[in-house]
Amino acid sequence: MERREQILVAAAREFDRAGFAGASIAGIARTAGVPQGTLHFHFPTKLSMALAVIDEQNSRTFAVVSHGDGSPTAALIGASRAIAELLRTDAIVRAGIRLSLERGEFAHATASFYEQWIGGIVDVFRSAIASGELRTDLAAEQLGATVVPYFTGVQLVSEVRTGRADLFAAVETMWHVLLAGTADPRHRERLFGVVAEAFRGAD
Amino acid sequence: MERREQILVAAAREFDRAGFAGASIAGIARTAGVPQGTLHFHFPTKLSMALAVIDEQNSRTFAVVSHGDGSPTAALIGASRAIAELLRTDAIVRAGIRLSLERGEFAHATASFYEQWIGGIVDVFRSAIASGELRTDLAAEQLGATVVPYFTGVQLVSEVRTGRADLFAAVETMWHVLLAGTADPRHRERLFGVVAEAFRGAD
Repeated sequence: MERREQILVAAAREFDRAGFAGASIAGIARTAGVPQGTLHFHFPTKLSMALAVIDEQNSRTFAVVSHGDGSPTAALIGASRAIAELLRTDAIVRAGIRLSLERGEFAHATASFYEQWIGGIVDVFRSAIASGELRTDLAAEQLGATVVPYFTGVQLVSEVRTGRADLFAAVETMWHVLLAGTADPRHRERLFGVVAEAFRGAD
Repeated sequence: MERREQILVAAAREFDRAGFAGASIAGIARTAGVPQGTLHFHFPTKLSMALAVIDEQNSRTFAVVSHGDGSPTAALIGASRAIAELLRTDAIVRAGIRLSLERGEFAHATASFYEQWIGGIVDVFRSAIASGELRTDLAAEQLGATVVPYFTGVQLVSEVRTGRADLFAAVETMWHVLLAGTADPRHRERLFGVVAEAFRGAD
């Protein structure tokens, strides 16, 4: 692992454990096994480290959204499964999401993170409505703007209640609620099948 | 205002602004306008202050859930409106919710906070299903366990994106999604009317 990435992973572990305010530069240097001078060379401030973690988390989570030409709703279901998986296994993704839920100095960076996510998901919902998979009174903009917070809350409460042990089951229930209200009857069975398949035996 | 409450409100403002790790005893004493010795007399540690804020927030938010004998779903819609209102106006509620989303020393207290909420809401969903208002494949337990995270995420993302300016509109969309998937057709129009009424001109 490169030195920079080694530091980033150590920073992620510390942010994930203690949050931004609670994380210490000394602790990060210790976890990374590098002198504080080396750490400052790569990241002059704790804030620059947090922003780098958020950035890297953004890349990793956006990378899982497939842009195939199959079913748009199935692509979203698959992405939610992949992000849930990352939340259970990837320290940088966990820390980035945790920092995104904090406020303070990087509030601006994290607000734009939500805008990007919502924008990306609105596009997929627009395709899903245009393709006839979803039929709803809600606009694609409203669906995107409500599904991102829904997933955010589900992963967060799962973390608090069970250390994310019930995360897959909780995301599956989320999809049941969403599809019960928005899937076109002709696509409903298939989409419920996609959900069952995605989360089967996952917990 | 009693001295203890005065300190609690000051602590809430500081926790709401800076989170648990970022809040300082000196800052709280300054905001409360009391010497640190007085503050220690009422709350020996920062943790005891945070737990008192969470406790008080629990009382205030539970107090808005009406237990009348009317429509159970309408009671939940009304409670969500009232809690959204408290999140916009009450520093103790805001701080308690923020602390509930953090982890660390009070993780146990906040986990039990979610258990209480989910338990209370499951009871109301059970009544709503029994009364025929809701008709769904999901069990009351699943509905309760998904609606609490949904509301949690909605208020959190609204805070990050707009400082809660769009909170009422976002909670209204949440109810549209939930009711589209779970309201019995015979009750649907009435329940959508309850939502429109609760959030009309609210933002």
